[in-house]
Amino acid sequence: MTSLDAPTPTADLGVAAVVAELRSLDPGGSRMAKVFRSTFDQLYDGQRTGRYSLAQLFKTEKTHFGTLLEINLQRELKFADGGVLDFKIAGLEVDCKYSHTGAWMLPLESFEQLILVTQADDQRSVWSAGVVRVTEENRRTSENRDKKTGLNAHGRSQITWLFKDAPMQPNALLQLPSATVAEIMSRRSGQARLNELFRQATNRRLSRNIVATVAQQDDYMKRVRDNGGSRSALRPEGYLILGGDYFIQRDIAAALGAVVPEPGEFVSVQVVPAPPTEGVGIDEEWWRLAEPDERIDLPAPVLPR
Amino acid sequence: MTSLDAPTPTADLGVAAVVAELRSLDPGGSRMAKVFRSTFDQLYDGQRTGRYSLAQLFKTEKTHFGTLLEINLQRELKFADGGVLDFKIAGLEVDCKYSHTGAWMLPLESFEQLILVTQADDQRSVWSAGVVRVTEENRRTSENRDKKTGLNAHGRSQITWLFKDAPMQPNALLQLPSATVAEIMSRRSGQARLNELFRQATNRRLSRNIVATVAQQDDYMKRVRDNGGSRSALRPEGYLILGGDYFIQRDIAAALGAVVPEPGEFVSVQVVPAPPTEGVGIDEEWWRLAEPDERIDLPAPVLPR
Repeated sequence: MTSLDAPTPTADLGVAAVVAELRSLDPGGSRMAKVFRSTFDQLYDGQRTGRYSLAQLFKTEKTHFGTLLEINLQRELKFADGGVLDFKIAGLEVDCKYSHTGAWMLPLESFEQLILVTQADDQRSVWSAGVVRVTEENRRTSENRDKKTGLNAHGRSQITWLFKDAPMQPNALLQLPSATVAEIMSRRSGQARLNELFRQATNRRLSRNIVATVAQQDDYMKRVRDNGGSRSALRPEGYLILGGDYFIQRDIAAALGAVVPEPGEFVSVQVVPAPPTEGVGIDEEWWRLAEPDERIDLPAPVLPR
Repeated sequence: MTSLDAPTPTADLGVAAVVAELRSLDPGGSRMAKVFRSTFDQLYDGQRTGRYSLAQLFKTEKTHFGTLLEINLQRELKFADGGVLDFKIAGLEVDCKYSHTGAWMLPLESFEQLILVTQADDQRSVWSAGVVRVTEENRRTSENRDKKTGLNAHGRSQITWLFKDAPMQPNALLQLPSATVAEIMSRRSGQARLNELFRQATNRRLSRNIVATVAQQDDYMKRVRDNGGSRSALRPEGYLILGGDYFIQRDIAAALGAVVPEPGEFVSVQVVPAPPTEGVGIDEEWWRLAEPDERIDLPAPVLPR
């Protein structure tokens, strides 16, 4: 979208004050990133339902993503209640608007007011949040039956972005080919589905929520462990399931040149023995990542914790 | 509210079909009762926040009770998505409307359509759900700016109630005097707050969620138990904390003439020794409920499981 108007940075003290307050509440964006991630996961309800994409949701769930995001943002950042609009930030009334596509619907109450515009894409693992005032020159004149309108091109150019396409924890199931996910999910037991996940979704960050969605049972974390879980089941096939909760396993992931799991995440890789000069020491032997389709003759080593 | 029109039971086949389907999905209302209870509890978020009433919620949370109820009803009863409205029930489009006060807001889209009207009162532990069609004679003509209206008195009389003021699991914290709750919540540790709950909230059903709200910690159920939890702490004061998960403890509650805990609930009572003819046998002795302010000289017995 381009605007014919020059993007004149009109000094809006309200926008500046709200932006400053939000930046001080969440300087790196990690709190908001967590809220976007957990709102998707709350709606998917994966542990009970096995769902992992918006397309699988009920209509009521789909419609109300924005509602849940508003609640979860207010809970996380403890915004004061607004008198007229949703929140009071830096003492100013602010309405929160969400749209998957950036087509925020602006009701009459928001006219001339400040709005916090939010957007997220679980496929690309990104989210955005910005602040703009719904002035007459920033909004479209066309109104639908409910008197709602949207930002015009100029208005979009006036958004002060707090974060634009900032990263959030990825949704591995959404990023895998759908045939692969179908194969994983076709297995009868939670343990079998989880083993297949760790076989198929290699060198990717797999969150606790992904594990819960695939396992669909209460004690899902036990199903990953050594004691009869995926780690022991897949060791003979050369799979190493690195856990982000252990510094030493994150170090091993980095040393192998694999994706490094964050706390609460797993990264599954296949390893083969290597000469000491090229390998990473694990369990008193030397190992490297297997090449695609490389033959596996030896079980993977036991991971230190 | 009384209607000047006689409540003519106009035969609306759509209403009848939706009512029949809902009755077959949830004959006793226990599934819907659970949805109302869990929607309140989801919004209170008591384990993390200690909140137990609507008045304590953020504005966004308060506003969206109906939204969450719609989602939770569709999840529980697995309604098909509507094409235009929220749900399809018995093949018919149905919009779901919630109001704490029975003043359901009816948008233009719902005109001439079937609506599932819902209402609940956590103070009185009751909920209601009914079906009505938004015909011209059932709705008010006055319209607000958003073109929303409501049912008129005649329209309210035309609701076919599935359940009217049906019981749901009580919220003990909301029913206790607020000074008592303040005293319970003023204690520093989760264990101390929980001990105070069992001292003050006697002969009442205390749900797992109430225990979580008061304890505000992850392993809250451990804090009830014998091993250093409230049961052992309060035994010297004569308190018996009966758990609804054990048939024998529910039987003891009934035999003592106390409120009987349902599964997942507790009922705390004070007991004193009794003559065998008047008492209930517990742990090889005979016991009865203590009178208010009766002196306690002996520790309560250990409960069988």
